[in-house]
Amino acid sequence: MPRESQIISQIRARAARSGRVVVPIGDDAAVVEHDGATDLLACCDLMVEGVHFRSEWSSPSLIGRKALAVTLSDIAAMGGVARFAMASIALPQDTSPGFISDLIEGLFRLADAYGVSIIGGDTSSSPGPLFIDTSVIGECARGRAVTRRGARAGDRVFVTGSLGGSSLGLLLLESGSRLEDIPDDKPADPLCRARREALTKHLAPEPLLHAGRALGESGIATSMIDISDGLSTDLRHILDESECGAVIHASQIPVAGCVHSLRGGDLRIDPLRMAIDSGEEYELVFTARPADRERLAEISRSLGVRVTEIGEVVERKGLYLEIEGSIKAVEPSGYEHKV
Amino acid sequence: MPRESQIISQIRARAARSGRVVVPIGDDAAVVEHDGATDLLACCDLMVEGVHFRSEWSSPSLIGRKALAVTLSDIAAMGGVARFAMASIALPQDTSPGFISDLIEGLFRLADAYGVSIIGGDTSSSPGPLFIDTSVIGECARGRAVTRRGARAGDRVFVTGSLGGSSLGLLLLESGSRLEDIPDDKPADPLCRARREALTKHLAPEPLLHAGRALGESGIATSMIDISDGLSTDLRHILDESECGAVIHASQIPVAGCVHSLRGGDLRIDPLRMAIDSGEEYELVFTARPADRERLAEISRSLGVRVTEIGEVVERKGLYLEIEGSIKAVEPSGYEHKV
Repeated sequence: MPRESQIISQIRARAARSGRVVVPIGDDAAVVEHDGATDLLACCDLMVEGVHFRSEWSSPSLIGRKALAVTLSDIAAMGGVARFAMASIALPQDTSPGFISDLIEGLFRLADAYGVSIIGGDTSSSPGPLFIDTSVIGECARGRAVTRRGARAGDRVFVTGSLGGSSLGLLLLESGSRLEDIPDDKPADPLCRARREALTKHLAPEPLLHAGRALGESGIATSMIDISDGLSTDLRHILDESECGAVIHASQIPVAGCVHSLRGGDLRIDPLRMAIDSGEEYELVFTARPADRERLAEISRSLGVRVTEIGEVVERKGLYLEIEGSIKAVEPSGYEHKV
Repeated sequence: MPRESQIISQIRARAARSGRVVVPIGDDAAVVEHDGATDLLACCDLMVEGVHFRSEWSSPSLIGRKALAVTLSDIAAMGGVARFAMASIALPQDTSPGFISDLIEGLFRLADAYGVSIIGGDTSSSPGPLFIDTSVIGECARGRAVTRRGARAGDRVFVTGSLGGSSLGLLLLESGSRLEDIPDDKPADPLCRARREALTKHLAPEPLLHAGRALGESGIATSMIDISDGLSTDLRHILDESECGAVIHASQIPVAGCVHSLRGGDLRIDPLRMAIDSGEEYELVFTARPADRERLAEISRSLGVRVTEIGEVVERKGLYLEIEGSIKAVEPSGYEHKV
């Protein structure tokens, strides 16, 4: 089987761009003309048991939640508002009614939290693993969708939240940690807290819809993407599409607290590498003009979302990392979903 | 695992109906308010290898084609125009690049034929079977979507095309027939022609987008559904939602020519039963006022789509079949996708 990226390239090449398609296949979501005032956004995301998740790692409710969260995150990355969603679910024959109810409930609860109406879906039995495909329809002001193409030399690179937690969560899951096994009675125990933070980041990512929308509507983000495959891979998508490069500074990368807390244990962790390569973070990385720093700080304050400046866009193509004054090229993590 | 219908009931019950949702989950497609002049339609359909199809029964191109055709058919059944589509595909590890290209090409070619832009998608490997979920966004004039709720006593029941071919095609596939094995050099041989007709009906159904749109935009169809689970099941959905009943006449059911041609062979076929229960026909069944018969005949002529009046809507709930003057209740086929 060819790599996912090769198949996607093939589909992109084949996709004819009709008159109403403003942004075709290849960005976080497609953008199509809607009416005079708004554009329509559409995207879908597939989660396959044994590829993207394992049932025994999580509750059915969190599986359903994450299946929708990752697609909502694509709307966030376009600076849009998510309006409607659909979910197609193929269930192994031995799936219990309780599992199904919990999965659906997890998905609906997240939809409710963001004012998204579930308007369609399909179900089937599966002779193999559990499959969940969610599609989301969103909106943004006409011409205001934030694509991957708008970064310009001189812009600064920003990232929301902190990075590395999801990758650490995956590592913990692989080594047998489970969210439900972390004792509730030690809220102050820093190791328990760090494990909980990492597992939650991986299993229950929050789609940054409010932040994405604010960054889009304000016109501050010149380009944006969500971190599904790792900062080193996703920022490169922006740079490739915008035909420029970037230098990011090691000392400015916001490494997740849990990564620092758990670095000393059995897990052999390089915190910086983990933060740069960690996939499924669903944080937003975006570019903005230096003149907009103050407006950006206001948005960050008013939404309570941490935003960190981590580098600058340069003419020279490629992604470079500055560590203690020396600069080296960053290889993409090559993150492809597998568990 | 509960039946598909039970899971869908659960989802319908949970789906909150927000202000902009005109028709929620439960019809062929959802209808949401768009702008002053148009409504948006959205639907998705899942095809799982080993449940809905077998790879060895068909070419990858026809598998891709059908995956989209069944979802476009849902837009047809709402009387809408299909505009945009997305496809999520999970591919078994040993899938060849050629298979993938052909599958994608089959899907794109059908999209091109109906002016539908493929604007998104996702791919993954699958540790189990091939899995294809397609979602389609369509449009119709404001308030003009044809739902399952509008049938009234006195309306007549109509069906497009002829029925039974798809079920016969499935039977032929199960008994080892393949489309590519039918000799091309005997175009006049009636048995070859009948086998080709039945297999094509099952493997390459045509979404009736032009007919559906004409029936919707003209206001002729008071209710409509596409036949995916069989006339006996799908017409009942209309009757249940419209809170009425119908009598259909055995002598008026348009049994597919191939069903008559092949009834005498090894296959034990009851042509009428096959026509009434055959799923995956993707013909449209709809109701219309008797006064609209002439306008309907005009649409039928101008589009070259056969339309047959098969019965009438009555107050008394239930679906009844009149055969040679005697009337009996029709049981639903209970068609659930399995191969």
